[in-house]
Amino acid sequence: MLKKQLAGEKAVEFIEDGMVIGLGSGSTVFYTIQKIGELVGQGLRIQGVSTSRETTLLAQSLNIPLVSIDSVNEIDLTIDGADEVDRNLQGIKGGGGALLYEKIVASASRKIIWVVDASKMVESLGKFPLPIEVVPFGHKQVIKKMELEDCQPILRVKNGSPVQTDGGHYIVDLHMNKIEHPQKLEEKLQNKTGIVENGLFLNYAHQVIIGGQEGVKIKTRDSEK
Amino acid sequence: MLKKQLAGEKAVEFIEDGMVIGLGSGSTVFYTIQKIGELVGQGLRIQGVSTSRETTLLAQSLNIPLVSIDSVNEIDLTIDGADEVDRNLQGIKGGGGALLYEKIVASASRKIIWVVDASKMVESLGKFPLPIEVVPFGHKQVIKKMELEDCQPILRVKNGSPVQTDGGHYIVDLHMNKIEHPQKLEEKLQNKTGIVENGLFLNYAHQVIIGGQEGVKIKTRDSEK
Repeated sequence: MLKKQLAGEKAVEFIEDGMVIGLGSGSTVFYTIQKIGELVGQGLRIQGVSTSRETTLLAQSLNIPLVSIDSVNEIDLTIDGADEVDRNLQGIKGGGGALLYEKIVASASRKIIWVVDASKMVESLGKFPLPIEVVPFGHKQVIKKMELEDCQPILRVKNGSPVQTDGGHYIVDLHMNKIEHPQKLEEKLQNKTGIVENGLFLNYAHQVIIGGQEGVKIKTRDSEK
Repeated sequence: MLKKQLAGEKAVEFIEDGMVIGLGSGSTVFYTIQKIGELVGQGLRIQGVSTSRETTLLAQSLNIPLVSIDSVNEIDLTIDGADEVDRNLQGIKGGGGALLYEKIVASASRKIIWVVDASKMVESLGKFPLPIEVVPFGHKQVIKKMELEDCQPILRVKNGSPVQTDGGHYIVDLHMNKIEHPQKLEEKLQNKTGIVENGLFLNYAHQVIIGGQEGVKIKTRDSEK
């Protein structure tokens, strides 16, 4: 079995009947959602809150009942992937471009589990380019400022056009290689007009399920132990 | 002459030939733009950067040459309105719903002048409801959090539907009556996932032109004197 699949499928063990489940996006949580579809077929009753158009389509194809994030009071558990996770379970997300909706769903969740393969675990964040979601109007001004601050910004482009997120924004990837102070960087990014959200997910994940050579390992954030 | 008109028209005296001018939105800067149109007709050469669809239409009708914010290096001077201004020239903007684009244009400007009538000058900010621009996806979660923090949020609605900004977001007005610590409030709002921008414009305006009973008065921000 693939490492991604190991991690993705393990996560369903944390799901209980009746829960509202945040459904992340990407290739690892794909296996979680597949498995949830199986369980729903066997009678599990949950309601899913999707984080992307892609996940919505997948869940619908598996007959997983979906509800809007704006119709639920709270999300009991969100299962999502991540692009990089450090030893304190701080992470970078947004490689797939769904960071804004993922962070909105995460912010409304009581518990968050990330599913990753072992290659995503890192000593320090930043080798994976940090995505920021920016307002199209004035995006070049944001890129210019990020250049001046040595963040090595590159507008994400597909087929010659800027990639547009589900929210109608652009993605700029910051190729910083190493992020010395994630907290400080996040503060700086949050203060910049034109940046809607950034891919730093600090103090979000409560547990990370890691698929590796020898099966799955589960890490719990210090403050949660 | 109307107080608004007095202030709005006075601002054009700060425009120099060849400048890139940020054109704000609203009923006071309307008079500025009208006057700029006149001057352009008389040979003034400027390039305008618009902050809203409304302003774009007005400028086009007056044959003011417009350029995109993403095609200029910097904006020399932005002239905009404000809904409330305190004695330190801190302000609230966004009553007209253009706060995001206005702040993006302001952030790219070397100099900012606000034009207001005297009724906009206040002892402390907050009587005017503070607008925040929010992502439609999950906006009810944002409203719920703002309620918990006693910010008295009300979704801005027109003809039964949420008002949609030029950027495709919603507006939520915070009826706080008095904002004790604008800086702290802004920080809090900037940290909230789902809030794209807020209407607090702190340390933006360099000068405010105030139209009153006895003509215009110009105030300059302390740090700019």
